[in-house]
Amino acid sequence: MKKENYRKLTNIFKKYYNYEHLYSICSWDKDVYMPSQGHIARSNALSDLSELLHNTLVNNEVKDLLSRAEEEELSSLEKIILSEMKKMYERNSVIPAELQKKQTMATTLCSHAWVENRKNNDWKGFLKSFKEVITLTKEEAAIRSTSSHLSPYDSLLELYNSGIQKLEIDNLFQDIKTWLPGLIQKTIEKQKAENFIPVNGHFPVEKQKALSLAIMNKLGLDLSAARLDLSAHPFCGGVPQDVRITTRYDESNFTTGLMGIIHETGHGHYEQNLPRDLLSTPAGMARSTGLHEGQSLLVEMQLGRSKEFLASILPTLKEFLGDHDFLTIENLFKIYTKVNADNLIRVDADELTYPLHVVLRYEIEKLLFEENLSPEDIPELWNQKMKNYLNLDTRGNYKDGPLQDIHWPLGSFGYFPSYTLGSMYAAQEFARAKFLYPQLTSEIEQGDYSSLFNWARENIWEKGSTQTSSEIITNATGEDLNSSFLKEHLFKRYS
Amino acid sequence: MKKENYRKLTNIFKKYYNYEHLYSICSWDKDVYMPSQGHIARSNALSDLSELLHNTLVNNEVKDLLSRAEEEELSSLEKIILSEMKKMYERNSVIPAELQKKQTMATTLCSHAWVENRKNNDWKGFLKSFKEVITLTKEEAAIRSTSSHLSPYDSLLELYNSGIQKLEIDNLFQDIKTWLPGLIQKTIEKQKAENFIPVNGHFPVEKQKALSLAIMNKLGLDLSAARLDLSAHPFCGGVPQDVRITTRYDESNFTTGLMGIIHETGHGHYEQNLPRDLLSTPAGMARSTGLHEGQSLLVEMQLGRSKEFLASILPTLKEFLGDHDFLTIENLFKIYTKVNADNLIRVDADELTYPLHVVLRYEIEKLLFEENLSPEDIPELWNQKMKNYLNLDTRGNYKDGPLQDIHWPLGSFGYFPSYTLGSMYAAQEFARAKFLYPQLTSEIEQGDYSSLFNWARENIWEKGSTQTSSEIITNATGEDLNSSFLKEHLFKRYS
Repeated sequence: MKKENYRKLTNIFKKYYNYEHLYSICSWDKDVYMPSQGHIARSNALSDLSELLHNTLVNNEVKDLLSRAEEEELSSLEKIILSEMKKMYERNSVIPAELQKKQTMATTLCSHAWVENRKNNDWKGFLKSFKEVITLTKEEAAIRSTSSHLSPYDSLLELYNSGIQKLEIDNLFQDIKTWLPGLIQKTIEKQKAENFIPVNGHFPVEKQKALSLAIMNKLGLDLSAARLDLSAHPFCGGVPQDVRITTRYDESNFTTGLMGIIHETGHGHYEQNLPRDLLSTPAGMARSTGLHEGQSLLVEMQLGRSKEFLASILPTLKEFLGDHDFLTIENLFKIYTKVNADNLIRVDADELTYPLHVVLRYEIEKLLFEENLSPEDIPELWNQKMKNYLNLDTRGNYKDGPLQDIHWPLGSFGYFPSYTLGSMYAAQEFARAKFLYPQLTSEIEQGDYSSLFNWARENIWEKGSTQTSSEIITNATGEDLNSSFLKEHLFKRYS
Repeated sequence: MKKENYRKLTNIFKKYYNYEHLYSICSWDKDVYMPSQGHIARSNALSDLSELLHNTLVNNEVKDLLSRAEEEELSSLEKIILSEMKKMYERNSVIPAELQKKQTMATTLCSHAWVENRKNNDWKGFLKSFKEVITLTKEEAAIRSTSSHLSPYDSLLELYNSGIQKLEIDNLFQDIKTWLPGLIQKTIEKQKAENFIPVNGHFPVEKQKALSLAIMNKLGLDLSAARLDLSAHPFCGGVPQDVRITTRYDESNFTTGLMGIIHETGHGHYEQNLPRDLLSTPAGMARSTGLHEGQSLLVEMQLGRSKEFLASILPTLKEFLGDHDFLTIENLFKIYTKVNADNLIRVDADELTYPLHVVLRYEIEKLLFEENLSPEDIPELWNQKMKNYLNLDTRGNYKDGPLQDIHWPLGSFGYFPSYTLGSMYAAQEFARAKFLYPQLTSEIEQGDYSSLFNWARENIWEKGSTQTSSEIITNATGEDLNSSFLKEHLFKRYS
């Protein structure tokens, strides 16, 4: 029994994985179907499950098994799995229980306060609870930094996009900043001269839901292993074998809901195609939040907003929504590529302005964690950057400024870059597929997305976490992640 | 810290209770919303959760705490809670893990085989896997018998209706057998001469669902802490703070679906009104399956099928279904009290014949566990009893005979009496409420069910498991459970 320790570990991680399954389904239910009065009992149950998850992973037995398994004769795949297990153990064990408890209390308090503070545009009120969140996250970052030998902010970035540090992100974002603001202003000018027919009519939820399912099916998502439901905020939850996509519908305009579904289908594809045999090990998980976002943006931005894709779904749109004057390929393309010059809100941003919302947040986070930026000074910095990048004024408008996202109240510093890393992954992936399959765009126009998805499945999705994100993207596309493909894509689409 | 051990126990049971919450929600989801391909992952997750539940309760720490807490100075309520904790511990700890594992395997195998065997009317095929289930349940009964000092079958009955043994059930059922078969035959004759207008029309699921919710609301169920969904078999699941009722609808006939909802609302009332402060202890749980069925039958049979209740919901029926010639009080009453002389199936049985389906099963189970009845001989005995009690022939018809229920393949011997104990509880409760509130029936006719439900809440529901079932029914009605109220009710309604 040479692999006894390794085998014991796989059993423990399988248990962990099964407990996580329960967590996913019960939190999905919480956001989708739970009646309002159920929330206290559910919170208590999920809180006990969180503690169980932590204790299943972080204990001396696991610690000993991890070091003993190192000495065992393992296959190369088993070595990778073991190494991912170690990383997972370290990430979860390094923060003392006492600090974690304080963080849970502070973020619960702050995210509750945030709802009110945001409503009242009350930055000063928000600071009261937010400062404690920052202080505790700094403590966390310091501890992680000592253990990981990374800088404090890098040690937070590591939690979401392992292996991608601020040096790399700085380079990528620096490049974007050189050409994107200019492209945006030119596009705004250009679009002023263009006309499109706005969507109008009544699109009942039931019709939109049927359309959504038809599109998800057309996109090849396995609907015998997925569901579509309603929730306040669209998300893709559940587990790889049972993907739970949610959305919301605007009965006066189907376009946002539809594109939301297409986006979440990208997340769903990644989940459904993770390596089945490895699912109960950390090597079977999605590699990073950036790569996950990359898959949703591959399907939404690269595929979904292209004229070819819009052409391919036009008959389906007409089938479910009836014939309308705004239902033409050109018109839909204009709607889906319209740049909104006045938008202050990240989640409502169009493809072109979105990255700058992210750059701004990343730069502020970096200053908070590495340069001792005082939280009091965030709004002024926010306003400066909005002015510089998007030519927008946010003075005094905290609720549409630094109070707009829930990430910070929740203490999720280091997450934001994932969105724009995702845009770059998506552009780089799509460019590679187009290079390999010269007929790709005409296939897409015919409603055949198989070349794209088969390529992504084999080269990205099925890799899970058996390689680093850098290995995955380099093996898949021939070069490491860079911004040139996003640049090329945006210039081609918008100028 | 005089109650240190007791306090530790309450923390462990709270954890157990929170884990059970997750189990309830995830099994509800499994039956209601889970996509088909999700079932293996879900089974694995639920199986690990079962094991966790078992291990949380059954371990030396709990054993020691239970005996040490006995020595502590506890209030009378705490003593009751401790005693229920002990019972729960014993019930769960007495069966060796090895036997439990064998039972899980045998019942999984047998319940899978049962689906096919039933389809093919194959009793012999069924015996192959069923014999092992019986053998193992006999082993279980022997072990429980040694530990509980009850007879083997009594030790199984104890699992569902603690404190009610076969001596008591024999007396109750013996009495029923003296008058019920005669009443049935007389009623069948009498109803031959009666006419009613059968339901006809199309009743869309959406309309029936809206009607169901309106009726649940009218019945006072807290819909901010409950949901209604579709499932293959109606049930009431979830947790007390978040009740999940399910049903199915026949679009050509609303009556069965509607009465199903009314039945499940009774279960829901009991759950929603269990003692809130005690929910995380075993004293906060529903007292027994018989008493639970008693509450659903109180709402369905005593209230729901009465002319007064039908009068009170008639306007709601018309509001949601439109006006129809079959929508009169008298006609609905005839529909809901129609005895089906040819019905072989327990779950489809009417109020009058149902108890005899239960008596038959109880008598066969008793012979299996106490008289060594060979499983080969079940069909013959079944046929004899169907002939004697209901004047029906089931020779050779195994699928509508002993293969009709899933209880036996699952190894749930001792459960069946709960249904008829429930009929008796319901009749006895309703009679008491009518005695205390002479205006009860006229209130009901006006759509005011508050006297009945307030009484049931205070006297039954809110007791949880703080008293034995015998104490509960005796304190509530002035006498121990007996069949006279059911007899009186049925004679009054049917003769």
